[in-house]
Amino acid sequence: MAKAPVLTPQAEDFPRWYQDVLNKAELADNGPVRGTMVIRPYGYGLWERMQAEMDLRIKACGAENAYFPLFIPESYLKREAEHVEGFSPELAVVTHGGGKELEEPVVVRPTSETVIGEYMGKWIQSYRDLPLLLNAWGNVVRWELRPRLFLRTTEFLWQEGHTAHATREDAAAYAARILEDAYRAFMVDILAMPVLVGIKPSYDRFAGAINTMACEAMMRDGKALQMGTSHELGQNFARVFDIDYLDPEGQQQLCWTTSWGSSTRMVGGLIMCHGDDRGLRVPPRLAHIQAVVLVIRDEDGAGDAGARLADELTAAGVKARLDAQVATPFGRRSTDWELKGVPVRLEVGPRDIAEGNAVLVRRDTGDKTPIPLAEAVTTVQRVLAEIQDALLAEATAMRDDRTVEASSIDEVLEGAQDGFVRVPWPLVAGEQEAARLGTKAVTVRCIQRADGTVPGGEDEDDLYAICARSY
Amino acid sequence: MAKAPVLTPQAEDFPRWYQDVLNKAELADNGPVRGTMVIRPYGYGLWERMQAEMDLRIKACGAENAYFPLFIPESYLKREAEHVEGFSPELAVVTHGGGKELEEPVVVRPTSETVIGEYMGKWIQSYRDLPLLLNAWGNVVRWELRPRLFLRTTEFLWQEGHTAHATREDAAAYAARILEDAYRAFMVDILAMPVLVGIKPSYDRFAGAINTMACEAMMRDGKALQMGTSHELGQNFARVFDIDYLDPEGQQQLCWTTSWGSSTRMVGGLIMCHGDDRGLRVPPRLAHIQAVVLVIRDEDGAGDAGARLADELTAAGVKARLDAQVATPFGRRSTDWELKGVPVRLEVGPRDIAEGNAVLVRRDTGDKTPIPLAEAVTTVQRVLAEIQDALLAEATAMRDDRTVEASSIDEVLEGAQDGFVRVPWPLVAGEQEAARLGTKAVTVRCIQRADGTVPGGEDEDDLYAICARSY
Repeated sequence: MAKAPVLTPQAEDFPRWYQDVLNKAELADNGPVRGTMVIRPYGYGLWERMQAEMDLRIKACGAENAYFPLFIPESYLKREAEHVEGFSPELAVVTHGGGKELEEPVVVRPTSETVIGEYMGKWIQSYRDLPLLLNAWGNVVRWELRPRLFLRTTEFLWQEGHTAHATREDAAAYAARILEDAYRAFMVDILAMPVLVGIKPSYDRFAGAINTMACEAMMRDGKALQMGTSHELGQNFARVFDIDYLDPEGQQQLCWTTSWGSSTRMVGGLIMCHGDDRGLRVPPRLAHIQAVVLVIRDEDGAGDAGARLADELTAAGVKARLDAQVATPFGRRSTDWELKGVPVRLEVGPRDIAEGNAVLVRRDTGDKTPIPLAEAVTTVQRVLAEIQDALLAEATAMRDDRTVEASSIDEVLEGAQDGFVRVPWPLVAGEQEAARLGTKAVTVRCIQRADGTVPGGEDEDDLYAICARSY
Repeated sequence: MAKAPVLTPQAEDFPRWYQDVLNKAELADNGPVRGTMVIRPYGYGLWERMQAEMDLRIKACGAENAYFPLFIPESYLKREAEHVEGFSPELAVVTHGGGKELEEPVVVRPTSETVIGEYMGKWIQSYRDLPLLLNAWGNVVRWELRPRLFLRTTEFLWQEGHTAHATREDAAAYAARILEDAYRAFMVDILAMPVLVGIKPSYDRFAGAINTMACEAMMRDGKALQMGTSHELGQNFARVFDIDYLDPEGQQQLCWTTSWGSSTRMVGGLIMCHGDDRGLRVPPRLAHIQAVVLVIRDEDGAGDAGARLADELTAAGVKARLDAQVATPFGRRSTDWELKGVPVRLEVGPRDIAEGNAVLVRRDTGDKTPIPLAEAVTTVQRVLAEIQDALLAEATAMRDDRTVEASSIDEVLEGAQDGFVRVPWPLVAGEQEAARLGTKAVTVRCIQRADGTVPGGEDEDDLYAICARSY
């Protein structure tokens, strides 16, 4: 007899499945102010691990963390014309502070190029101060009319990097390095998400940028999700915020700046890339709980055996959790851990331990295997590594299976209803073509070289556009 | 010939010394909106380490991290009468979002009891859900009329813990545990700051609390700084946000809640507790740079020897940094690292390495000793441990030397001009007495038992008040 499904099946209604997972796995709730989000402990645990791993990679790229204020004078935003035009419709504005109306309203940062530009201008004097490589973790606010938890929220958590360089080449190389060594490397190696990289069409750049690069992932409904972006800002912000330096010859020169960001949106991407009809599937390298030891019934020493096993796993460096809540039915606890996507479950009951065994359940495949308790630690470590690889392989196969080649706009429109379409860039480069794609909610997600690498610009020969519907 | 001091001497003008350190050690800048703060990389590095160590201790107390929204509906704050009265004058209010005037203004959180209370009410059903132990890292805003960097800023970074319990006793025990095992333990063991603990007088409690406990540290000008607080909220928030549960007998019961916070203010406290006329002195266990290897001149292999030494230190787990910027005068670099308070400097020059030596300089004492390069790693590890102990001992001696006993209000007023005064609590407990202390900016910082432990309430026998001027 089949159990009633805990979640709406993905094939039936993907958006509802997503909402169900958020609720049932206790990941997030809607905040009281429209578009805001409460991130519950299990969901926040995923974000904490993302932060830790991303932070390591950003620091390895030489950037240092700093903090800039939440409040930005309205006048700062107005200094860069494209920037203010891009962000004005999304701003939250503070008009009262300390019981009085403010003389100048302040905006809650939607991003920090302007305020950081102001301080870079103060701090940078000479070529010896360059490059200046900064990163900030924090919250930003962009008023959302159609919010969706993690994917598009009025307030979200992120890191935003901001750097200043002596030359355009150095700035471009750094923006590309972050995209590759911080973003793509993290997404592939830790999130097990085989993201595509490329540049955005000029009409889809960040407001104030001269080039925007992005990582794009495929969700299990075939849609694309932008997972992180890295921008060359040229001298646009340097000019208005006086970010300049004395070169070795004593000449005043304008800097070249970059900015780059990744956010809690990645949590949404993770869910929709790996989740299945039973819930989340968390890649072991990301998981803050890699293995849960489930005591079935506390009889004949099963409770002690479970506690011992959890301790052994922890001592060996596995992030293990003991669930000995035997007052709650075993089936319910098992379903809960499945919903939360913990990679490995170890079921410990009186019958198993009498034989010196536990039952290992893999979350990715659902396979159940009795394993000797004496070998449990090494087995779990091996299986965790296998699951990490298997999730990446599965996501890569899904992406490749659902990517088609096209040689006309009609083919793009057809193919993009179910996944990604790769098409020679000149075929979709024009404004008219973009508008036609738009009629079916299809966009150019990124532009790549034939070998999948990031081009130097839209004008290179032999470029391909990846088109898709998107979140 | 004495050099002109880099900093205003502490004895001459302590507040100016503090400002000088913030500037010269590149710790923080004023933000563009009055009262806000830019935390520069070196200052943020201190905060990052504080976060990491505090986070460990909070998690060891069983709390899990989560995230709650920056924006709170104005109506939420109004539900708890004392709470809104306490915070109203300090609120920043968003009246416009997404280009429109909002139907209901939202406040930028000054603290999150209200919004977290709302969700606790939703999440808690039964006694099995208790205790619910949450913590959140983030930014809050309290409009400041007399801002001072790190100590009192309009926006600051902090952690705020919020818990719900079945009984008053359990809530009280948990609030006390956080004060002792998270706050005091961290401040003593990592910050090397011998904080006093106690309860606040009833008129100085957190808005909405039935008991407030605090850690109080002495700064080098004899003033007190409140470094962290832990509050019992009774059932005040539980009542207005319907935080209730079904007990094992099936009866609906109201929860007892707590909240507790520590912030970037601790960075200011660290500076003013350990800093001297040459700059910061960072305790080794907190330092993100514990030892800097300073190449004096890159001649006769000194550069290579310095790089090797830095690598060896790093490999041995010492947080080491190589400074081989020989184009900058050695004296200036040396002064800079001294300003930044790096515990140990290792000077490596051609003359020293010819003898197989480096010169070890202790930041706390200024002592310079030649040490054999071959023993450098073990020597540095030993000296770092010594410096940690020495800073705590020095701060403890300062606190004890500048703490006097009093048996009258006049003695309190006199003694508190230069440090802490310990006085039997009944002597200063009344409103009139508090007002008299106030005429000389003296307040009761905390109330302790005779043995320095935290009392159960103001009514216990044999209590002492610690009085001081404060930040």
